[in-house]
Amino acid sequence: MSRPQTPEPTLDGQGDASVGSPDEDVADGIQHSHRMLSFSDALLSIIATVMILPVTHTEISPEQEFDKSVQRLLATRIAVYLMTFLIVTVAWAAHTRLFQVVGKIDDTLALLNLACMMTITFLPFTFSLMVTFPEVPLGIFLFCMCVIAIGVVQRLPQALIVLYAFHFPHLLSPQIERSAHRGLYRQHILGIIMRGPALCLAAAGFSLFFYPASYLLMATVIFLPYVSKAAGWCRARLMGPREPPAHSMEVFTFDLHEPLSKERVEAFSDGVYAIVATLLILDICEDNVPDAKDVKEKFQGSLVAALGESGPHFLAYFGSFATVGLLWFAHHSLFLHIRRATRPMGLLNTLSLAFVGGLPLAYQQTSAFAQQPRDELESVRVSCAIIFLASIFQFAIWTTALLREGETLQPSARFGGREHAFMFAKLALYPCASLLAFACTCVLSSFSTAIFHAMQIAVPFAFLLLRLLVRLALASLRALRGLVGPVLARPAPGAADEARSPLLPAPC
Amino acid sequence: MSRPQTPEPTLDGQGDASVGSPDEDVADGIQHSHRMLSFSDALLSIIATVMILPVTHTEISPEQEFDKSVQRLLATRIAVYLMTFLIVTVAWAAHTRLFQVVGKIDDTLALLNLACMMTITFLPFTFSLMVTFPEVPLGIFLFCMCVIAIGVVQRLPQALIVLYAFHFPHLLSPQIERSAHRGLYRQHILGIIMRGPALCLAAAGFSLFFYPASYLLMATVIFLPYVSKAAGWCRARLMGPREPPAHSMEVFTFDLHEPLSKERVEAFSDGVYAIVATLLILDICEDNVPDAKDVKEKFQGSLVAALGESGPHFLAYFGSFATVGLLWFAHHSLFLHIRRATRPMGLLNTLSLAFVGGLPLAYQQTSAFAQQPRDELESVRVSCAIIFLASIFQFAIWTTALLREGETLQPSARFGGREHAFMFAKLALYPCASLLAFACTCVLSSFSTAIFHAMQIAVPFAFLLLRLLVRLALASLRALRGLVGPVLARPAPGAADEARSPLLPAPC
Repeated sequence: MSRPQTPEPTLDGQGDASVGSPDEDVADGIQHSHRMLSFSDALLSIIATVMILPVTHTEISPEQEFDKSVQRLLATRIAVYLMTFLIVTVAWAAHTRLFQVVGKIDDTLALLNLACMMTITFLPFTFSLMVTFPEVPLGIFLFCMCVIAIGVVQRLPQALIVLYAFHFPHLLSPQIERSAHRGLYRQHILGIIMRGPALCLAAAGFSLFFYPASYLLMATVIFLPYVSKAAGWCRARLMGPREPPAHSMEVFTFDLHEPLSKERVEAFSDGVYAIVATLLILDICEDNVPDAKDVKEKFQGSLVAALGESGPHFLAYFGSFATVGLLWFAHHSLFLHIRRATRPMGLLNTLSLAFVGGLPLAYQQTSAFAQQPRDELESVRVSCAIIFLASIFQFAIWTTALLREGETLQPSARFGGREHAFMFAKLALYPCASLLAFACTCVLSSFSTAIFHAMQIAVPFAFLLLRLLVRLALASLRALRGLVGPVLARPAPGAADEARSPLLPAPC
Repeated sequence: MSRPQTPEPTLDGQGDASVGSPDEDVADGIQHSHRMLSFSDALLSIIATVMILPVTHTEISPEQEFDKSVQRLLATRIAVYLMTFLIVTVAWAAHTRLFQVVGKIDDTLALLNLACMMTITFLPFTFSLMVTFPEVPLGIFLFCMCVIAIGVVQRLPQALIVLYAFHFPHLLSPQIERSAHRGLYRQHILGIIMRGPALCLAAAGFSLFFYPASYLLMATVIFLPYVSKAAGWCRARLMGPREPPAHSMEVFTFDLHEPLSKERVEAFSDGVYAIVATLLILDICEDNVPDAKDVKEKFQGSLVAALGESGPHFLAYFGSFATVGLLWFAHHSLFLHIRRATRPMGLLNTLSLAFVGGLPLAYQQTSAFAQQPRDELESVRVSCAIIFLASIFQFAIWTTALLREGETLQPSARFGGREHAFMFAKLALYPCASLLAFACTCVLSSFSTAIFHAMQIAVPFAFLLLRLLVRLALASLRALRGLVGPVLARPAPGAADEARSPLLPAPC
C-alpha cells in the first residue's frame, strides 16, 4: 500500500484530499489482476473450444455415403482443430506467464488486454478460412499474421521487461549480474522470447509459395518447448546435470521451466468443460425443437408425437452431458490432490481438454446415426476413441504427477496414501469403460449403438457404486477393527508393513 | 482441520495410516467449494445467455417485409428471453445463497450439483419449446416442471437445514430460541423457502387449461422478492421501522435481505460477457467464411474479392466486440469500487446483463441491414436501445450504490472521493453516446448506419481520451501546485473544505 508518485485528480481538484484512505491502490487506478485474468481465461477457453464447430457442422447429406472422401475431410478438419486448440493454449500459457510477472494492472493495461483478446477472437475465423481453403495461401497467411499479432502483443512487454531488467542489473539474479557474458545472456533470453513470433513469420512467408512448410513450422512452434525440454532431460540423464548458472538463467526467463499457475490451469479447464456442455445444449435447442408447420402437417398437431420422434437425441444428449460432467468431476478430484502443475502435466491436460472439446462431435455422431443406421459402427468407434483419449490423458496427468510425487502431490494421494487407490479407480473408470465398449463393438458389431448407450448410462452408476463400495469396505473395516481392536495397538506384522512403508517411516 | 469421525480406507486397509498429514480435509473427501462454484457460475451464465440464440436466429426471408407480424414475433421472443434470463438468475441467486451456508463439499454433493446443473441445462430446450408453441400447454408445462425440479433440488437442502436447525435449537439465533412462537417461525421460514416451487407448480397446473395465468405466475416468482422488499421499505418509511425480532429472523432465512456474494456476482457477470463475445465469433465463423464453390463460380477463385463482399460484417463485428469489451471494462471498474452488493444492485446488474445478452441481436441487426437497406432505421434504433439499456442499468447500479455509499462503496468512489468524477464519466459515456446516436437517427434518418458505426468506433477512442483528459488535467494541476505550493501547506479555505468534508473529518 505504498503511495505512488502520481495521484489522480479528485472532484475538488485537490490531489491529496484522501490521503490515508484504506483503498489507496484502487484509488490510484492500480488493481489486482485477478478478475481480468479469470475473464481472459473464460474467453480463451471458449475461443479454443468453439473451433470444434466447423468439424461438427460438416454436413453429410443423406444420399452421400460415409465414404473415403468424407472421412478424409473429417480427418483434416479434426487435425487442424487439434492444432489450433494447441496454438490457443500456447497463447494462453504465454498470457499466464506474463501475468505471473505483472501482478497488478491499471486501466491502460486492462484496455490493452481487451485489444489482445479481440485479436485472439479472430483466430477462429482465420482458422475457418484455412480449413475451408487449405491450399489457398491467403487463409494460412491471415492465420499466421493473427498468431504473430497475438505473439507480439503478448511477448513485447515481456521483452521490454527483460531489457529493462538488464538495463538495471541490480534487478537481475546474482549469477547473471556477476557474469562477464551478460550481453550474450540477453541475446539468448530475447531469442527464447521472440522465437515463436519469428517462426510464425517464416510460416506466413512460406504460405505464399509452399504451404506445407507453413503447417510444419506451426507444429514446430507448439512442440519446440516440449522437445527441447525432453532433449534436455535426456541429456541430463546421459551426461549428468548441466552447469547451474545456465539453469538459473532459464528460470529467470520464466519461459520454459516454471510450473504453471494451478489456479489458472483450473480456470481454463473449467471454461472448456462449461462451453462443451453448452455446445451440447445449443445443438439440442437448434435441431430438436419441432417446427410449428411440421407438427401441424405430419403429427396432426400432437407435440408429444413430434417430440417422441427425436427421443434418441435426448438419450444421446443425457449420455454426453453425463460424460462431460463426470470427466470434469474426475478432473476436479485429481486437481484437489495436486500441489503444483509441472510443464508435462500442463501439456497432458491440454491434450485431454482438446479431446473433451471433441465430445460435441461424439454427440453429433451418436445422434446422427439415429437417422443413418448403416454408419453407426464407425460413429460409435469414433465416439469411444474420443472418450478414451480424453480420459486416458487425464490418467496420464496422474501417472506423471506420481513420477515426482513429493513435489506435485498432496501426501494422501501418494503411493500408500489413503486416497491413492480411490483416486486410481476414479481415473481408470472412463478409459476402461470406453475401451471395453470399443472391444464389444468389434465382437458384437450389430449392437454397437446399444452397447455405447449402455456404457454411457452405466458409468455414472459406476461412479456412485464406487462410493458405495468404498462405504461398504469402510463399514466392514470398522466392524473388523471393533473385533480386533487391541491387535492394532501394536505395529501390524508382515505384508501390511510393506504397503505402509512408502508413507510411514519404517520402524528401526 | 479437526479430524472427522469416519476416516476413508487406505490402500493397505489401515484407516489410521496417515494420521497427522497436512491435508486432512482433502484426504477425507471434504473440499472447499470454490472451484465447483466457479464452474457452476460459468455454466449458469452460459445457459442464461445462450437463450438469445432463438431470437437472433429468427429468420426473416429476403422477400418478407420487416412488417407488423415479424415485429410481433420478435417482440414476443425478446420478452420471453428476458423472462427466462431472470429465472435462471433467480436459480443462480438461490444457488449462491445455498453455498453461502454450505461452505465445504464432499464428492456426493459435487455429483448432486452436477445433476442439478443437468436439469438447468434443459431449461433452454423447454424454453425454446415454449417460444415455438406459446399456446400449447405442453411447452409451458415442461418448462414449469423444469423450474420446479431445479427449485426442489436447490431448496430441499435449504429446507432440511432449516428443519435441522430447528430440531437443535441451540444452533438458532438467540431471539428465535427464546421466542415462544418457534413453531410459527418455522412455518414462516419454510413458507419463504418453498414459495417459488409452489408458485411454479400452480403455473404448471394452469398451463393445462388457461395458459396466460402461467405466464403471470412465473412473473410473480421473479418479482415477488423485490416487490415485498420494496413494500417493506415503503412501510418502514411511512410507519417507522418494524420490530427487530422479525428482522433477525429474516436474516436467518438468508433469503431476502442478505447481500449477495460480490465474488460470485463478478464471476456470473464475467461468464455472460465472455459468452456474448463468443456468440459474436460464432456468428462470424458460421456465416462469413465464403463457400468454396461460390468463390470458384462467382469470384473466379479470388478469395480476396469474396472476403471483400462481407466487409460490413467485419466492421459490425469489431464494433460489437468493442462494445461488449468496453461494457465489461466499465463493469470491472465499477465493481472495483464496490464493497458489498445489495439486493437492488443485484437486480439492476441482472437487468444490465440481460441487455448485454441482447448485443448479439444488435450485431445481427447491424450486419443484416447490409443486405436490406430499407429496414436499417429500425435496426439501428433497436441496437441503440439495447446498448442504451445495458449501459443505463450499469449506471443505475452506481447511483443505487451512492444512495447507501457508506455501506456499499470504497471511500475513494464516494461523493468527493478522488475517483468519483472519473467513475461518473466512465459510466455515463455509453448511455450518452447511444442516446446521441438515437437522436441523430431521428434527425438524419438517411445516414443512420453511418451514425451508428461512427458511434461504435468513436466510443473506444472516447475511453482513451477520457484517460488523456484526466492525464492533462493532472499535469496542469501539478503545474498549478508547483506555483502555489506553499499555499497548500495550510488548510484550504472555503469551497474546497466542503467538498472534502464527506471523506475527511472536519477540522475542529
